[in-house]
Parts: sequence; C-alpha cells; structure tokens
Amino acid sequence: MSSVEVHSQQQPEPASSLIPTLPGSHYTDEAVFELEKSRIFQRHWFAAARCSDMPTPGSFRNVDVGGESVLIVRGRDGALRAFLNVCRHRGARLCVEESGTVRRSLQCPYHAWTYGLDGKLVAAPNLNSMNDVNRDEYGLIGVALREWLGTAWVCLADEPPSFEDTVQSAVTARLGDAGTIDGWGIDDLVVGRRITYDVKANWKLIVENFMECYHCATIHPELTEVLPEFADGYAAQYFVGHGAQFGEEITGFTVDGQGGFDTLSGVDEDHDRRYYAITINPQVFINLVPDHVIFHRMYPLAVDRTIVECDWLYTQEVVDSGVDLSRSVELFHRVNQQDFDACERCQPAMSSRAYADGGVLVPSEHHIGEFRDWVTSAISG
Amino acid sequence: MSSVEVHSQQQPEPASSLIPTLPGSHYTDEAVFELEKSRIFQRHWFAAARCSDMPTPGSFRNVDVGGESVLIVRGRDGALRAFLNVCRHRGARLCVEESGTVRRSLQCPYHAWTYGLDGKLVAAPNLNSMNDVNRDEYGLIGVALREWLGTAWVCLADEPPSFEDTVQSAVTARLGDAGTIDGWGIDDLVVGRRITYDVKANWKLIVENFMECYHCATIHPELTEVLPEFADGYAAQYFVGHGAQFGEEITGFTVDGQGGFDTLSGVDEDHDRRYYAITINPQVFINLVPDHVIFHRMYPLAVDRTIVECDWLYTQEVVDSGVDLSRSVELFHRVNQQDFDACERCQPAMSSRAYADGGVLVPSEHHIGEFRDWVTSAISG
Amino acid sequence: MSSVEVHSQQQPEPASSLIPTLPGSHYTDEAVFELEKSRIFQRHWFAAARCSDMPTPGSFRNVDVGGESVLIVRGRDGALRAFLNVCRHRGARLCVEESGTVRRSLQCPYHAWTYGLDGKLVAAPNLNSMNDVNRDEYGLIGVALREWLGTAWVCLADEPPSFEDTVQSAVTARLGDAGTIDGWGIDDLVVGRRITYDVKANWKLIVENFMECYHCATIHPELTEVLPEFADGYAAQYFVGHGAQFGEEITGFTVDGQGGFDTLSGVDEDHDRRYYAITINPQVFINLVPDHVIFHRMYPLAVDRTIVECDWLYTQEVVDSGVDLSRSVELFHRVNQQDFDACERCQPAMSSRAYADGGVLVPSEHHIGEFRDWVTSAISG
Repeated sequence: MSSVEVHSQQQPEPASSLIPTLPGSHYTDEAVFELEKSRIFQRHWFAAARCSDMPTPGSFRNVDVGGESVLIVRGRDGALRAFLNVCRHRGARLCVEESGTVRRSLQCPYHAWTYGLDGKLVAAPNLNSMNDVNRDEYGLIGVALREWLGTAWVCLADEPPSFEDTVQSAVTARLGDAGTIDGWGIDDLVVGRRITYDVKANWKLIVENFMECYHCATIHPELTEVLPEFADGYAAQYFVGHGAQFGEEITGFTVDGQGGFDTLSGVDEDHDRRYYAITINPQVFINLVPDHVIFHRMYPLAVDRTIVECDWLYTQEVVDSGVDLSRSVELFHRVNQQDFDACERCQPAMSSRAYADGGVLVPSEHHIGEFRDWVTSAISG
Repeated sequence: MSSVEVHSQQQPEPASSLIPTLPGSHYTDEAVFELEKSRIFQRHWFAAARCSDMPTPGSFRNVDVGGESVLIVRGRDGALRAFLNVCRHRGARLCVEESGTVRRSLQCPYHAWTYGLDGKLVAAPNLNSMNDVNRDEYGLIGVALREWLGTAWVCLADEPPSFEDTVQSAVTARLGDAGTIDGWGIDDLVVGRRITYDVKANWKLIVENFMECYHCATIHPELTEVLPEFADGYAAQYFVGHGAQFGEEITGFTVDGQGGFDTLSGVDEDHDRRYYAITINPQVFINLVPDHVIFHRMYPLAVDRTIVECDWLYTQEVVDSGVDLSRSVELFHRVNQQDFDACERCQPAMSSRAYADGGVLVPSEHHIGEFRDWVTSAISG
Repeated sequence: MSSVEVHSQQQPEPASSLIPTLPGSHYTDEAVFELEKSRIFQRHWFAAARCSDMPTPGSFRNVDVGGESVLIVRGRDGALRAFLNVCRHRGARLCVEESGTVRRSLQCPYHAWTYGLDGKLVAAPNLNSMNDVNRDEYGLIGVALREWLGTAWVCLADEPPSFEDTVQSAVTARLGDAGTIDGWGIDDLVVGRRITYDVKANWKLIVENFMECYHCATIHPELTEVLPEFADGYAAQYFVGHGAQFGEEITGFTVDGQGGFDTLSGVDEDHDRRYYAITINPQVFINLVPDHVIFHRMYPLAVDRTIVECDWLYTQEVVDSGVDLSRSVELFHRVNQQDFDACERCQPAMSSRAYADGGVLVPSEHHIGEFRDWVTSAISG
C-alpha cells in the first residue's frame, strides 16, 4: 500500500474556510508569556530531565521550569525528588551548576544551611542555640515528580493534574492504545547523543511546526526521502495509530536511508519500518523509529527564546558497542535545524500588523487548531 | 554681498524669551516611540529606498518602516511595489536578506506558498485540492508607493496623506518654488557612495540637529570653512530660498574646499556656488550643492537608536569615469560624524531631571520649535 | 578576654521566631528600583567620590547618583561643587569622560555654551545679540555637597536632610561616640589602591551581606583566620563600640595575617589590633583597621547591577615609600570577591516563588531587619 493511497482513502473533506492561528501578539507579548509560565509550565506536568542524568545518590540536575529553577536530585534511597533551588534562609541558589553530584546533603554555600537529599533542614550554624528555628518548617520546597519513559516529569502546582489523563493520555490518543509505547522500552534505552538547540523563537511556533508536515516537502529533503508520504503534507500524527512508512529502498532511519540498527526487540512487525511522532503538551515531542527513539524536551526561557534538548536513545548494547551513531543522529539533527530555522524566520513577523489576527491553517494543519484551543483554554483559567 | 550682510539685513528680532524644546521624556519613553511608530512613520510618507537599489525585475529591498518589515520589489512590468514582508499562511518572513533578486515570484521558504511580483498568491502546495483557499484573499498585503527624486516613498496608512501636500510641499516651502529642485535632476543621478550610520540617539535629536546651524561653528570646522556664513549660526534653511554661499577661495564642496566636479547641467547660475539643505518630515534630509546631492534617509529602530543611510549622488558620467570621489564624500561624512556624536552626547541626558521640561531654543533655532509642534500634533491625533 | 567569652557574655536572647527579610520582588522589580532612585539615592546624602579624585582647580569627576549624572568639579577657589551634568541649552552632557581636568570653564561641546566652575553661564555664541538670555537663569543646576572623611557627599534633594543626623550619626551609633572616627585621620589618608567591582546583584543584597557575619565562617577563611571571633557569626557591628580582635598570632590585617604597617598615629591602644566595620545608609561601608582604612562606595545602576568602588587608604608616607601593598590589599579584595559572589548567587532566586515572601533572619542578623525597616520607610514617603 503506498502512502498516496492511504491519503486518498483517508483524506478528510476540506473545511469550508481556512481556520485562524493564534493572533501574533501571543508570540511576542511578555504578559502572555508570563501567563503561560504560571498557568501552563508551572501547572502542567513538565518533562524536566532524563532520569539517567541523575544516575547515583547525590547526583542532581538543575532546570528552568516556567522561570523557576528546579533541582532534581537522587536520594540515598535511589528515588528522585525535586525542589525549588532556593535556600530558605536568605535565598541563595543551592546549586548553580547545571548538573553534578553532592555527597550526603545539599549545603548552601552562603551560610551553610544544610538540607538532606530529601529536602529536610538537617543543620545550620549555631542551630543548637537557635531553638526558634523549626527544622521542619524550613525544609526545601518540594515539587511533585513522576518518572515515566525514563523521564523525570515535575509539576509545580500545589495540586497537579492527573498524570494519566494528561501526559499518558496524549500518547494513547496518538498511538491508539496505551500499551503500544511499551514496545520501544524507552525506560531502558540510553542516551547515545544529546544536542541542545538555542532557538530564537516562541515555544508555540516550535510546537506548531512539529504538529504539521505541510512544510516537509519544502524544507526536509532528507526526511521525505526516507518517508515518501511526508511529501504529501500530512503529518504522521494526522491519523490515529498511523505510522509513516519507510520508502521501499530505505533500510534505516538515517541521513541517507541506509544502514540503521537492529529493530528494538519489543517493536512488532506492524510497527517496524514506520515512524511515529507524538506531541505531549506543552513541551515534549517523541519520535519512534524501529531502532531508536528521539526525545525532545523544550525549556521556554523568554517569549522569543526556547532551549530544546534532544536525546537520541538507543539500546545499551548499541551504545556500548561503540558503533558509529553519526548517520543515525544526523537525519533528525538536520530536521531539527531546518525546523528551528523556519521558526526563527516566523518569530520577527509575529509583531507585524499583517499577523495581528494571526495566519491561517490549511486542512492538513488542523491539529494546530486543537493546540491553539488548548493553549487558549489553559491560560484563561 | 557678503554673508554677514545677508544676516545683518535679514536677522529677525529676538523673541522676548527662549522657547522650550520637547520635554526629555519624548526622547526616552518607549510609549512615545510606539506612538511615533504608529502615528508618524506608519502614517506619513517614508523614504524607504533609492529606486536604483531595485534595478531589475525581481530585485528587492527589505526595510524597517516604523517597526514593520516592508518589502519593495520591482515587477516584471518594471514598476516598483511594496508589501508587508509576511507570508499570509503562517507568518514567515518572505525575504530575510536586506536585498537581493528573485526570479519570477516570491516563494515562502517554509511551506512554499508562492506570490507573484504583484503580490498575488499564485501557488501553494495541494492548492488544487484546497478549493477553500481564495487566492485573491490571501495575496500579500500591499503598501502604498510613490517614486520621486529617485526615491521609493512608501506609506502604511490605509488612506495615505497627499504626497504633494506633505513631501513635495516641504521642498517647495524650503526652496521657494516647486520647480527649483528639478535643476539637480535627482532622478537621474546615481549613487557614488553610500555610508550607513548606526546612531545611538532618538531620531528627533538627529532632525533637530539638522535643522539648526547654531552648532556649526563649534563642531563643523570643515563645513564652516567652505560656507563661512554658517559660522554665524543661522541655518541654511532659515531663510526661504536662500542657499549658503561658498567662501571666496572655495572651488568645490569638498573636505578642503578645492576641486569638485562640473556643475550639474540643470543648476543655473543663481544656484551655483551655493548649498541648500532641506528637511522633509519625518526622516529625510537633502543637501543640494552644484555638483552633487547628499540624500539622508533615517530608519528609527528604537527610542534610542536610529539607522541613517546617506547617499552621495553624482551624474552617471562622473561615476562611470572612475574619478576619485573621496574628498567630495569626506566633507559631509565628517559633518555626519560630528553631528551624530553630538546627538549621542545628548541622548543619555534626556532622562535627567535637568531636562524634564526640555531645554531651550535660541532665536536662530526657531525651526526646531516648528518641528516640535509638528511632532506633538502628529502623535496626538 | 577571648572573643568567645565576649559572645557568651553578650549574646542576646534569641527571638521567639525568625523575622522576615524584604520580599523577593524588592530585589527584582523595576518599579521598586525607580522608587529607590528617587526616594533614597536622590534624597539622601550619597558618597560620590574621594575628594582627592578632584585634586586641582578644574579637575572633575562624573558619577551616577540614582540615575543622574552628577559632575563634581573643583573651583578656582579650591572648593568642590556638584552640578547635574547637563547643558541647559539642548541637553548635551558637558563631560562624558569619567574624570579629567578642564581649564577655566565647562564648555558644552555642542553649541559652546560656557559655564564657570561655579556653574554660572558666562558665555554663549551670539549672546550679545540675544538679550533675552538670562545668564543667571541658565546656569548649571547645582547639587548640595559636603566634604567629610575625605569624601565628597552629594544630595540631589531640594532640601537635603541633616548631614549630622544621618551620615555622621550612623558612624557615632556604630562606634559609640562621635570623636572616635577622627583617630584614623581619614581626611589625610591617600588612595593606595582602588578596585572597582561590577556586581550583578541588587544593591540591598550587598548591604545585607555587609551587615552580618553569619556567613563569615562559610565563605571568608582568610578573614576568620585574622579575626577568630568572626567564625562565631556575630558581625563586628553587632555590639556598639566593639571592634573584632585580631587573633593572637596575627601581626597585621593582611591576607596571611603577617606584616602590615605602623599603626596610624591617631589610633589609640584601645582601638589597636581591632577591626571596625561601619555601614552608612544607603551606600557606604567603612572598615577601620590599625594601619589603614577600606572605604566602599556603591553605585546602583540597575535593579540587578551595582558598581562598587573600593579604596584602600594609607598614610601619605606609606604610599610614597613605594612599599608593597599587595598582601594588605589582598585580604579585603578576597573578602569582596567572596561576598559579591554570594550576592550574585542570591539575585536570580529573588524572583522565585520560594522567595515571594522573602527569607528569614537568624538572631545574629537582626541588623538586617533594621535596614529592611529603613528602606521600607524611605521608599514609602
């Protein structure tokens, strides 16, 4: 079955008129970004780090979640915990390094207030003579944390939303059932390569770019070579459960379509030689291919600047073998560069009077309309 | 008749008290600059580029007009047209280069929506299957354009003001009649040299500087050598129709007053050996001398930053001859540097309590008062 | 009497609960900083420069006082005077250099308006023909100035507060009487070394750091080696009139506690081998040791940026001798670096939700609570 047939059979009727995107100000207005920080990034589950970034007790990572510095640290008991990275005494950052390892405790380098890896205040100079200091009251401020897909998800809300009904249901909605994702065994994969991109664009432009493939024919020559149906402009996530099929001559999801590694043991024949893209609002993209997984986490830092951390995940065996990953990594690295260039090309025009009411979506971009509604609803409540 | 006699005869009575400038906040307040962008630069005719910057069909230039990126492109029919530089689909910049040449159309590099050089949407991927896309409705947004003095003037207003009553009348008011400017044949002159200055000052400080010559004796030694009457502090534009006369020993409008080129054929004897300065609100200065024209276009980018593009225009014959233009260019290049240094010296003091109510104008600066009133009126309506 | 005994005898009862600092927004909010500029730095006496920075008639210095550029110049009569550094005509900065020397007058380099060193307008081009210019009316705007401790203190208020009741009383309150400070003869000391620090922190974090020694044990190993009692966490200024005693093996206030210079002739035995720290709100710290004085002046430039200029002052004899000052300077230079690093570590956390209500003060930090109240009161009125 060719991809063209798939589309001609499944293609929906075009809408009677083009539907609008968000207005331009939503990509440029500091006040909108402040709302998004407090009502989206600090209220929803946020993929903060790969769990293996904190491999041993005392190892930590420090990430920006909606403007808050969140410290994720592995305890003596092996569990991950997250805290606001602020000493309760006079407000110094506990850790300024992006990552590292402490021994038994987190000690503030200003006045030496010392917290256990579970966040409890365990010591402070002159503490014995200060019976007014309630050690329980002055522990680090904790942040909710869940582990899934080898990822530490945190939520700054006092009452986090259901992880199942938000994060996990997004994967289910895309793949058609809850169990399919397990085939890739993402928990057990390891980071073969990480590339961090500093994108001068609003985070929503990056999401919207990821959600449609109408641009694929124009800017992704390597990707459309591997996945010929993408040249037609329908994104992989357009059809529930559908994975874009590799071209007939393609032997791997690599920059030249040749090579690749053994199909992961949990990926069955129905999902082999296919590519699945998943978006989990607000800041995660997952790409599933037979022999690896590409996992993007976005860290929106300003209304017009977003850090994107992208992990290429392989089996432990592949990484340990020392085999050359470069052609495998290069394919999506180029896709990333092509996409982020496009986003950076849109950002400066968002403030134009030509975009005051936003742009328009063609029918194959209709997922972006759902994202627009999701964002609008999220920041209004 | 010496220049001193001119002044002693024509000098007006001093006003009974010094008149004020604009208050300091008008040079530092972001909100004022926003008003100026929308009510001055986007509502009035704006000299955007030299027509010869777009010499052939498909050649374009991309300029900032009051915060909007405006694309000026020459059509297949040879006519210049201007558009907002924003794709109607998802808002990408059509052209990010400052200038260049396209072949037959303007194609957005994101999703390949394609516009004719007349702005009409002529193609989009899958357009045949999208009968809901109204090609007429989604053409580029046009901007009014007029050609005069070899310059492409654009206006972003829906209903532009009369070009004759604003741009052309400013020249008439300065020179005394409408036809005098034609003597310099500015349409046919060519750019011998272009220098672009990045000035860390509000655009109004630059206009005000250009409108008076009270500073000439202090900061322009070369200019006052060539034009001795400027040492007296009365600007060339102070008297309608008056051109500052060259000093007796001066043989050219050059850095050392020697040399220069043949007087332009259309400049008659009454206007030979004289210098005329013209200000066209809000962002053009023109200097007329017997053998060339110096044309300044300002592009205000921020409340405290202005790009000034200055063209030295000569006959085609002079430029083609390969003759050395450097002493000719050097005179006003030094004047520009001296003026812009002065403006940059004023900018940081605009926020001082000492300038909260502005400064004062001496009688020879009275044109600045008219400019102040023009600006105040323009932004209030 | 060992320092430990001092503390065990004098240590106050701990408060029943920890008291709060200022809320985090006071360290990050532009609007708060604007209030501080107008109501603190422009209303209170501000240590602007060392008098010897302007050694001779015509020498000047140019400093930022709450956002205003203030020019301090020594007159022909030898007296220091201060003016707003803005020409009354069109607002140019009179002096853009940080320091220098003019001859007989201050001449604006834009239009040559010329002011005497006493600020009076003495000449302007065409002034004779401009009988409307009132020379008295257009003199430079003066700023109140007092000299004390070899320092030029200025005040931008129309009616400055009592110098005695603010600046001088702060010293008296710390040392216990008004005359003690005279022992160091600060007027006659000379600058042996000046180091300027560009600190990326709000000025109040720097004051608060200077006001407590609870951090000394953690970040100041060299200082606590010289002053062992500082390891206990009680700041020198905690007890009125108390100076922290040098350790038994210490022979000088130097980076290794060895060497040092002769005790200043006015410092009596009671004050020898001791260290006194004094804070004068809002921007001066003075450290008195037997053989020199360390004088800090802060220049807050932005809500998150402060310039600190630190002078190491010695007798004329010591400086003239050419003796090596480096070990003497190095001790407090390290203390400065350690402190400013700590402040920069706090600044980014001030915007955290964890610090929305501020942090807490332990009993030995209670002076910071007084500073908090002083600031709160100063900006509210």
